[in-house]
Amino acid sequence: MTFTIEFQPRGLRIDRTQPINGLDAARQSGINLSAVCGGEGICGKCVIQLLSGAENFKPSEIERNYLSSEKINQGYRLACQTTFDSDVKIYIPTESIIEDQILQIEGGESSHIIHPAVHQFELELKGAHLKDLTSDFSRIKATLKNEALTTELDVLRCIPNILRENDWKVNLWIRGKEVFHASSTRNTNHIGLAVDVGSTKIACYLLDLASGKILTAKGTPNPQIAYGEDIMTRLGYAMQGSAQAETLFHLTIDAINQAAAKMCERLNLSPNEIADGCLVGNTAMHHLFLNLPAGSLAVSPFVPVTTDPIYLPAQELGITAMPGAAVYAPPVIAGFIGSDHLAFLLAARFGEDQRVRLGIDIGTNTEIALQAGGRIVSVSTASGPAFEGAHIKHGMRAAPGAIEHVQINENGNVEIQVIGSQSPIGICGSGILDAVAQMREQNILNHRGRMNKTAPGIKLSANGKPEILLSASKKPITLSQNDVDQILLAKGAIRAGIDILLDYLKVNASEIEEIVIAGAFGSYMLPQHAISIGMLPRVPLDRITTVGNAAGTGARMMLVSTLSRTRAEELADQIEYLELTVYPDFDLFYARGIQA
Amino acid sequence: MTFTIEFQPRGLRIDRTQPINGLDAARQSGINLSAVCGGEGICGKCVIQLLSGAENFKPSEIERNYLSSEKINQGYRLACQTTFDSDVKIYIPTESIIEDQILQIEGGESSHIIHPAVHQFELELKGAHLKDLTSDFSRIKATLKNEALTTELDVLRCIPNILRENDWKVNLWIRGKEVFHASSTRNTNHIGLAVDVGSTKIACYLLDLASGKILTAKGTPNPQIAYGEDIMTRLGYAMQGSAQAETLFHLTIDAINQAAAKMCERLNLSPNEIADGCLVGNTAMHHLFLNLPAGSLAVSPFVPVTTDPIYLPAQELGITAMPGAAVYAPPVIAGFIGSDHLAFLLAARFGEDQRVRLGIDIGTNTEIALQAGGRIVSVSTASGPAFEGAHIKHGMRAAPGAIEHVQINENGNVEIQVIGSQSPIGICGSGILDAVAQMREQNILNHRGRMNKTAPGIKLSANGKPEILLSASKKPITLSQNDVDQILLAKGAIRAGIDILLDYLKVNASEIEEIVIAGAFGSYMLPQHAISIGMLPRVPLDRITTVGNAAGTGARMMLVSTLSRTRAEELADQIEYLELTVYPDFDLFYARGIQA
Repeated sequence: MTFTIEFQPRGLRIDRTQPINGLDAARQSGINLSAVCGGEGICGKCVIQLLSGAENFKPSEIERNYLSSEKINQGYRLACQTTFDSDVKIYIPTESIIEDQILQIEGGESSHIIHPAVHQFELELKGAHLKDLTSDFSRIKATLKNEALTTELDVLRCIPNILRENDWKVNLWIRGKEVFHASSTRNTNHIGLAVDVGSTKIACYLLDLASGKILTAKGTPNPQIAYGEDIMTRLGYAMQGSAQAETLFHLTIDAINQAAAKMCERLNLSPNEIADGCLVGNTAMHHLFLNLPAGSLAVSPFVPVTTDPIYLPAQELGITAMPGAAVYAPPVIAGFIGSDHLAFLLAARFGEDQRVRLGIDIGTNTEIALQAGGRIVSVSTASGPAFEGAHIKHGMRAAPGAIEHVQINENGNVEIQVIGSQSPIGICGSGILDAVAQMREQNILNHRGRMNKTAPGIKLSANGKPEILLSASKKPITLSQNDVDQILLAKGAIRAGIDILLDYLKVNASEIEEIVIAGAFGSYMLPQHAISIGMLPRVPLDRITTVGNAAGTGARMMLVSTLSRTRAEELADQIEYLELTVYPDFDLFYARGIQA
Repeated sequence: MTFTIEFQPRGLRIDRTQPINGLDAARQSGINLSAVCGGEGICGKCVIQLLSGAENFKPSEIERNYLSSEKINQGYRLACQTTFDSDVKIYIPTESIIEDQILQIEGGESSHIIHPAVHQFELELKGAHLKDLTSDFSRIKATLKNEALTTELDVLRCIPNILRENDWKVNLWIRGKEVFHASSTRNTNHIGLAVDVGSTKIACYLLDLASGKILTAKGTPNPQIAYGEDIMTRLGYAMQGSAQAETLFHLTIDAINQAAAKMCERLNLSPNEIADGCLVGNTAMHHLFLNLPAGSLAVSPFVPVTTDPIYLPAQELGITAMPGAAVYAPPVIAGFIGSDHLAFLLAARFGEDQRVRLGIDIGTNTEIALQAGGRIVSVSTASGPAFEGAHIKHGMRAAPGAIEHVQINENGNVEIQVIGSQSPIGICGSGILDAVAQMREQNILNHRGRMNKTAPGIKLSANGKPEILLSASKKPITLSQNDVDQILLAKGAIRAGIDILLDYLKVNASEIEEIVIAGAFGSYMLPQHAISIGMLPRVPLDRITTVGNAAGTGARMMLVSTLSRTRAEELADQIEYLELTVYPDFDLFYARGIQA
């Protein structure tokens, strides 16, 4: 049965079928109620007034602590202490509303509410004496008016000295209902660490947890590369034994710690001030950075050990942070769909509207999600590293000296654009995509992907195979039939994934209202060329958006907001994984996808 | 508002004002519903039928897993999934009731329901394949039909190998909603460790968690004694620095581990099979065995760091047990009222009826609780070690060779009874008590506690002070005026505590319906002598019960039953601590108490 919650004076309404907490209801309606404690009943700020039926909401002890009997009789309650399950009309006093703190996400339109998982409370207690013999921790709970608070032995071990050497003042860090750290004085900094552990690169961000702002960022190569360029080689290494698996684990954690230390150094901070963390990655990275056995990811049917969100002490992973700080690892979806994909979909706001949307994160494995008819289905497709320049004769990553764009006219004349405007030393993904697309447009390439040996600009290489010369400077850069084959295999895998998703959800390509493309390659490539080689279905160009490292964006959103974490977990529950290899006629889809 | 829950076919009823879970309600009414999972919704055994108003109890997903739609329409539900807050009539099917498993407590009349905190589940999963790609842990949750289960990384690290090397079978240990241990095969043993850490002796018990039976027990001296006979000396040592505090902590844990290892050896078990633990002690012992800073217990106003119950990984304390096993440390009440006192009151069933009852645990500190008018008030009084034979010229502990009973006739002739029927080498607490009481009865001692130098049997010692010769064998055993003074000070402290409690709760001594006496000395002493020297108020002897080491009994109850833990926590909330030293006219009460 649907019921309506109405908020006055703004006149906002939400409809629900399931009971909902008052604080969440206000937020869903778009009202950012003040709740510095995060809804734990510690701050008493989220005051609301029930305009009818207040007698059905028996005030809790916590509410009696913060509201006078008179206020309670007038229907005042704390939003965080109420649960609504039927029609209700609520008045929100102005003083309960805070100005929305919005995080503008770089490279995207998204904004979201900052709501960190950790909070700092500076307390001044009344000292113990013979007529008030409450224990230290009970005294803290009483001062915070929250009997449900818990803590760890490590914190209890610090508290007595702090209180007695500091005139019964103490600064507490609270996460949920847990006091996780105690110190003599308030920390001036309130920082968190977000990390996107990519197979190639680890992207680290230091954020101000209060404002949600990025303080600084640092990318560092994933040192696991020494044990294999591709994930399967690394998993194979990890499967040799627990010592090998631990090597990969420690390498990753060390790299994160080093990057975090360098970022802190820049800002004159200490890594011991990092009060919270969020780590995302593909499922293999996720298992390796948590030191979970990754063997089952390396052999069919490729199942993860767990897909649950994990929020664990930073110390347990060896991540340098404030004593007691925790690290959040969001859910993964399947063996080849990790928390980076989830973070991407979160940042791209999948599941928040009813539009038909396609989300693609292009990499060695390309994850694709299709949202349609209230469902979100994700697939992973082995697109290979061609778009990252691997297995391409002159291929390279997008770096200075890489040809990033190519133009070919009908005479076979080639114009190139090089990163850093220097002499070209290779060609990166977007350049390769351009070249193949232009060759197809100029009919240098036929629909089966064969180069026309007699077309202008085409030469025969030493082994008699055709190739096109893209640059004749110091180092000649060519693109061979073999290179083209690699690209067609890669785009074919992606297209097959898209077509199967459309087929599965019975959506026509023309119905796609938006294609969101994430990843470095996605930011550089020209969408029209992705369409012309058939990597993407033919949609109007204005329906294609690129969002860069959206996984990093999602990780940062989850770092600074428990609401984003909740949203991500809901999203993870909603996302259905579709296994391509057992889809009917998978081979046919793939063969069709490869065609140029 | 009071509502009634009625259980058919037994016709049992309970009245409530607060909402109550169905499982708890049944238990309160005396019906032991089957619930091997402990009310976690994993076993589906606690089926009940609502005879009216079933439509108000929307079945949960868990209930739908275990009950057919037909059953649900007939009002069948799982007791653990229901909460009652208004009048209701319930039918309990015979198959939902288990034969009560009752633990008979040695030396007492008490019995209680066995309900361990840990449970073992042997699972056989359907293996993963390309059409069923659920992660290992989700597969476990689905098989147990409980999506709320959680686990730790350490367990996740074991699971994949166990499943794949064991044909998808796994044996899980679950505590609450947490899978804390996984193994290939079912453990045949289901054992737990209960410990009463006394200042002098550590009493350890190994129990079968399924039956609640004591498998074996072992007492071991508390090795902290090397750092001080009395608690204050030890606390002083611990306050010298964290290294010193850790020494005391490690000594205690090592002693527990050694005792547990020896008990396991006797039974051909491994300490790694210990699946749960419960540790009680006075507040100083509690802080020392948890390695909490104990400094605040050594200086006025003597407040504990925390009084909360603590349930933490055994590993965190260094206690050898099954990986993932936890140890429960029940609440303490105040600086001088520990969890041993709570365990005693739990075992003695304080708070379960409305009788006027006095509970006394005699030791160096004597804790006394008075239950009256729905309240329980506890005090601690510094009775000193005289009853343990310390500070008494020929005093000794109750051991072979100790005079344990003394009879003096009107001619001053003395008859003695010696432990082990050997030649006496000293006198223990009960003997001293007898001697003093008999001297008073024969007017050898006047009401101010002075020995009559001219009375029969009294001699003057070398220093001219009177003494009574108790035994003239090989080693003459005497009791001097100074010895008598020590006893009068000790009993005076106890009597002052009792009288203040009676005064505080406005109870007349004649209203006391039961005096429960715990502790070793309490078991040996003759109650009539405790009355005749004025240690206890004059009550009919049949109102005095002795219960031995009741703290150990309480610890065992809490080890094998979460219901006892809950009860203990409720009791801890109910017990009021009264600080004697600031009580009006404390000195007067004490002076009056000392009189012989």
